[in-house]
Amino acid sequence: MAVGEACFDFYPVRGVRLASVAAGIKETYKDSNLAPIFDLVLIEFEEGSSTAGVFTKNLFAAAPVVVGKKHLSVRSARYFLINSGNANAATGEIGIQDALLCCKALSDISGVDYDEVIPFSTGVIGERLPVKKITSSLSKLFEKLDASNWLLAAEGIMTTDTRPKIATRRFNVDDETVTITGIAKGSGMIQPNMATMLAYITTDVICTEELLQELLVKVVNRSFNRITVDSDTSTNDSCMLTATGKAPIDLRDLAAQQVFISELTSLMQELAQGIIRDAEGATKFVTVTVEGAPNAQVCLDVAYSIANSPLMKTAFFASDANWGRIIMAIGKVNVDVDVSLVDVYLGDICLMLGGAKAQAYRETDGAKVMAEKEIVIRVNLNCGDVSDTVWTSDLSHEYVKINAEYRT
Amino acid sequence: MAVGEACFDFYPVRGVRLASVAAGIKETYKDSNLAPIFDLVLIEFEEGSSTAGVFTKNLFAAAPVVVGKKHLSVRSARYFLINSGNANAATGEIGIQDALLCCKALSDISGVDYDEVIPFSTGVIGERLPVKKITSSLSKLFEKLDASNWLLAAEGIMTTDTRPKIATRRFNVDDETVTITGIAKGSGMIQPNMATMLAYITTDVICTEELLQELLVKVVNRSFNRITVDSDTSTNDSCMLTATGKAPIDLRDLAAQQVFISELTSLMQELAQGIIRDAEGATKFVTVTVEGAPNAQVCLDVAYSIANSPLMKTAFFASDANWGRIIMAIGKVNVDVDVSLVDVYLGDICLMLGGAKAQAYRETDGAKVMAEKEIVIRVNLNCGDVSDTVWTSDLSHEYVKINAEYRT
Repeated sequence: MAVGEACFDFYPVRGVRLASVAAGIKETYKDSNLAPIFDLVLIEFEEGSSTAGVFTKNLFAAAPVVVGKKHLSVRSARYFLINSGNANAATGEIGIQDALLCCKALSDISGVDYDEVIPFSTGVIGERLPVKKITSSLSKLFEKLDASNWLLAAEGIMTTDTRPKIATRRFNVDDETVTITGIAKGSGMIQPNMATMLAYITTDVICTEELLQELLVKVVNRSFNRITVDSDTSTNDSCMLTATGKAPIDLRDLAAQQVFISELTSLMQELAQGIIRDAEGATKFVTVTVEGAPNAQVCLDVAYSIANSPLMKTAFFASDANWGRIIMAIGKVNVDVDVSLVDVYLGDICLMLGGAKAQAYRETDGAKVMAEKEIVIRVNLNCGDVSDTVWTSDLSHEYVKINAEYRT
Repeated sequence: MAVGEACFDFYPVRGVRLASVAAGIKETYKDSNLAPIFDLVLIEFEEGSSTAGVFTKNLFAAAPVVVGKKHLSVRSARYFLINSGNANAATGEIGIQDALLCCKALSDISGVDYDEVIPFSTGVIGERLPVKKITSSLSKLFEKLDASNWLLAAEGIMTTDTRPKIATRRFNVDDETVTITGIAKGSGMIQPNMATMLAYITTDVICTEELLQELLVKVVNRSFNRITVDSDTSTNDSCMLTATGKAPIDLRDLAAQQVFISELTSLMQELAQGIIRDAEGATKFVTVTVEGAPNAQVCLDVAYSIANSPLMKTAFFASDANWGRIIMAIGKVNVDVDVSLVDVYLGDICLMLGGAKAQAYRETDGAKVMAEKEIVIRVNLNCGDVSDTVWTSDLSHEYVKINAEYRT
């Protein structure tokens, strides 16, 4: 059902090893056909690595989010321990203890301190974490650690995803080779607020945690914070960026930093767009660009109003060039915009010019654009110079089917 | 597909006559099976009537909304001229002229001034109003005016509605009989902002336009402004309240006013809920009550977050007591609420107590409530004393089907 081809190639990152096993956590799913077998993933970083992270702003942030943020504030991370199949969210104090038990069990096996382990969970909300299933799988998981296991790790973190999301970049800075490789998961409960469901990006550059955090926030706001499947913000969203420092490139060098940001943005947009391409029931990949806005808030309000409107999303599904719904979605944002200035384009076709239907517009031209798998809507408010872009999917029969049958 | 039975009985209102004809405006619909035959409605008020109105806040407010607001500000209304099948929205200056032409044609026939006619339109956005079809039907329409035509009028304003919405009250004040009767239409593009798609309520009490406007705004905020089908705000929303003054009850009398408000609220909630019961593809009627909020904004933000979440709406459709989605929807509202205080009830069943799953909660109990056609969700934030209620529908396969096939 996913829109467009996916590439599963990747470059390993020096200083990073991964492993993936089936711990039986996903057995509790009602629809086991939706769930792949792998459900427990370990990512190891060599000593001296820096890690930055952004996490969900949902008030019911899950236990692993609470624990992980605390651990990161104290120590640099050595291990990410990630389970799918259970979110350990809305589990109260017991959930916190369960997450800590898993960190401590990995500490016993690996020899690092328990607060050098960052736990992550994704899956059913409100159920106790099956701690025993996890801890009894840790020895096997630890033994499997290998620099080449990226794709298995990407599979191990999936829930309703139909395919793994992996992206990779290799480029030169000052004749040194730098690598960035990342994985992500998510296809529903997606309008991340500071981070998406789960994403892990690693690189071998040298970078302090302060600077890494700054870069991550900047790039998240051009990637994972610009996608929406359903306007719903998960309780477990986390996006992590780790630098192992194995390549002799230091990001305090501004020229190097500039190249790095450009590559990182491209990679994180690929992962974020990968989530939309694999959105629940998606048959269309839609880019919504708003230009000429007076400020960033109006710009995003209009873009998300289009991207989240059920009437727009069903029109995408139906390949219906329903421009009445587009202007409805723009107009329902109650901001100070002069509608008699608004232009709207569907691909290269001008639908609306100066707030009314464009004279030259022909329904057949619009329908042609809407029939494509990938659709671009561009709105120019012509009342400022701020622009931004969000990506979204359509609302299909399959979306309703998946979410009427799946237990979050 | 509508949820629950509807009653089509009504009391005529002294001083009000109505008519409904088929003018052929709806012939342009792709799916003519969705459209009833009547598409042009006239409502006449005797001289001396007072009219109050609230209109959409969508920036692309339709031409009839612009014209109607202007006419109301100048004169008291004598006629409402309402067409379905064409919204006359996003039609620019020509749309305004088209609406005025219709008012002037009715002025010629009826003898009132053209600005005593208030035009309303609902249907396809962005197409020119078929003025000739309307003006050539006006004589016939005028001849048919009769006090008993309420149900025909309710049918004439329908678009994707599967049944007419009519509500009526008759009660005594100081031994005098007072009547309120109203009609409404709408089943999609419904999260009204100050008014719903189209609603016309009339009564025979005596009331100044100032007071009537005040009462209308107050009661709209307890009825039409508390419903959502799809979070989408139409370009044509209008809600009108007319008092003909034929009953010797003056609303300046505070005791009479109190009784009247109570009856009006009950009637307008019935009409608003009627829209939700007949929402596009609806199989469930859902009441979301939020209590213990620190202020009105937080209260409504949480209520609408639940009511508009596609994941909640598919869970309603699937009769799935998916409380993970409920807490996600509460938590994604980024407000200052202590989640460890939050209680959630599904019907009489307590799901969550103090921010974690209630000890006594059994999935089978929750599932029983969700299997009902009518579901009540009650959230207590326990951090204030503000409460409010919104009504919504579910997100079904039929919803996607209707909106993938219908041209707004």
